[in-house]
Amino acid sequence: MKQADLVKQIRKKKSFLSIGLDTDINKIPRKLQVEDDPILSFNKEIIDHTQDLCMSYKINTAFYEVNGWKGWQTLQKTVDYIKENYPEQFVILDAKRGDIGNTSLKYAAAFFDEMKADAVTVAPYMGEDSVSPFLTYRDKYTILLALTSNKGSADFQFYGNERPLYQKVISTALQWQNSENLMLVVGATKPEYFQTIRKLAPDHFFLVPGVGAQGGDLNAVCKYGMNKDIGLIINSSRSIIYASNEDDYAQAARNAAQEMQREMAGYFN
Amino acid sequence: MKQADLVKQIRKKKSFLSIGLDTDINKIPRKLQVEDDPILSFNKEIIDHTQDLCMSYKINTAFYEVNGWKGWQTLQKTVDYIKENYPEQFVILDAKRGDIGNTSLKYAAAFFDEMKADAVTVAPYMGEDSVSPFLTYRDKYTILLALTSNKGSADFQFYGNERPLYQKVISTALQWQNSENLMLVVGATKPEYFQTIRKLAPDHFFLVPGVGAQGGDLNAVCKYGMNKDIGLIINSSRSIIYASNEDDYAQAARNAAQEMQREMAGYFN
Repeated sequence: MKQADLVKQIRKKKSFLSIGLDTDINKIPRKLQVEDDPILSFNKEIIDHTQDLCMSYKINTAFYEVNGWKGWQTLQKTVDYIKENYPEQFVILDAKRGDIGNTSLKYAAAFFDEMKADAVTVAPYMGEDSVSPFLTYRDKYTILLALTSNKGSADFQFYGNERPLYQKVISTALQWQNSENLMLVVGATKPEYFQTIRKLAPDHFFLVPGVGAQGGDLNAVCKYGMNKDIGLIINSSRSIIYASNEDDYAQAARNAAQEMQREMAGYFN
Repeated sequence: MKQADLVKQIRKKKSFLSIGLDTDINKIPRKLQVEDDPILSFNKEIIDHTQDLCMSYKINTAFYEVNGWKGWQTLQKTVDYIKENYPEQFVILDAKRGDIGNTSLKYAAAFFDEMKADAVTVAPYMGEDSVSPFLTYRDKYTILLALTSNKGSADFQFYGNERPLYQKVISTALQWQNSENLMLVVGATKPEYFQTIRKLAPDHFFLVPGVGAQGGDLNAVCKYGMNKDIGLIINSSRSIIYASNEDDYAQAARNAAQEMQREMAGYFN
C-alpha cells in the first residue's frame, strides 16, 4: 500500500484508529465456543462491525501462536478475510521479529509474501542487517520498536548518557537504506516524549499502542505527535474488542470504536 | 529439564554442540522434494544421524513460518520427533520474541506449554515485563539476546558511555526474579568479549551462534567462555546440515558434527 493511499483513507474516514485483534479464546463470548474456529468467527464479526470506523487492523501473532499451527491458520484466514472484503484496510502483523540477515529475510517473506500483510513490527536490538530485509519491500512498512508503552521500557530504552537509546535507535534507523518504508512504535503512555520524537522523525508514521486499556491520552498524543499527513496510527485492542463479553459484543465493539473515531474526527479540518 | 541433567548429558557425550535446524526447502536434496513434508523428512534424517554427537537442537522459527501454517505443523512435528525419540536433547526454539507482559505470557505458553520446548530465545529491548513471563517456567530456559554475532550488533549493543548496552542488559537481567532460568546469547564472532561477559555472568550458560558458517573460533570461545559446568552451548547450523546437498547429506552432516564433537572432547578431562 502506498503511503498516499494510507493518508487518503485516513482523511476519508476521519479516523487513524487501528483495532488490535489480540483475540483470546478465554475472553470471547461463550456462544462462539461451538463454532469450528471461534477466534476466526469472533474476528469476522468484530471486523464487519468496525471496518468503516478504523483504517487498520493490528494482529498480534502471540495470540495465534499459542494455539499452534491451527492458530496460524486462523491468523492467515483473518488476514485473508480483511484483504478480500476490505482491501483498503492497512493490515499490521504485530510480530516484533528480528534476526540475523538471512533469517530476517525468511520472516519478511513469511509476513509480506505469504501472509500479504502491509506492515510488520520489528525489534531493533540486532541492528541494521536484522531490519533491512524487511525494508527492501516496496509499499510495505517496517514498524520499528522505538519507545514502547510497557513498564519495562524504562530498563533499556532510556539507557545512555548523552541521549537515551530510543533516540539513538530512531536517528540511526532513519539513516538506513529504504528508511522511507519505516514507521515507529511510540507508546501513548509517554505523550511527553512525542514532541522530541516528532522532531527526530518529522515525516514518518508512528504506531501508537496504549490508548485505552493501557491508559494513554489521545489528546496529548495528537497535540505533540501529528504531522501534515496525520502521521499517527492509534491502536486499541482490549478496550474495543472486549467492550462486552455478552451476545452484544460486536455492537459494543462498534460503539467503542465509534467513540474513538468521533474523538479523532475533531482533529481533522 | 534441570540444569544438572543438561550438564550430565554434556559430560557424558563430551559435547556441547547444538545443531541448528534452519531448514530451507531450497537447500535440501532434490530427492526429498517428493516427500509429503520434505523439511520434516530432512530434519528426521539429520537428527537420527547426529543425535549422539550433540546435546541440543536449535530450531529457528523463521524457517518454518515462511511456509505458513504448514510450516508450523512441521515445526511442531520436528519438536515432537526429538522429544519422543531422544528425550535427553535440549530443544531450543530460536524465536527471539518479546512483547508487553500479557502478550509475552502467550508466547511463553506457545513455546513451553504447547510446543514443549526446553528453551526460547527472547529479545531484551522491551525490558523486564517482556521477559519475566518466560522466566516463571520452572526447568525451562529463557535465552536472552546479549551480544549477537551479526554485523548489526554494533549499531546498538555497544551504545553507552560508561559501558556498552549489552553489558547493561546482562547485569540488569541477572537481577530479575527467576534469573536462574536465564541463559545468554553471546556471538562467537566476538570471542574477545567472552572474558568480560563471563565475569558478569559466571554461572549462566551461553548459547553461542556463529561457529562455522559465520566464522567464529571455537578455541577462543572455550578459553574465555567456559565455566565449571562447561557453561557453553555452541550452535552450528548451515555448516552441519548443508555439509552436502547430495544423497549423502545425512552422513555428511554426521561427519561435520563429529568433527565438532571431537574438537570439543579435547576440552573435557
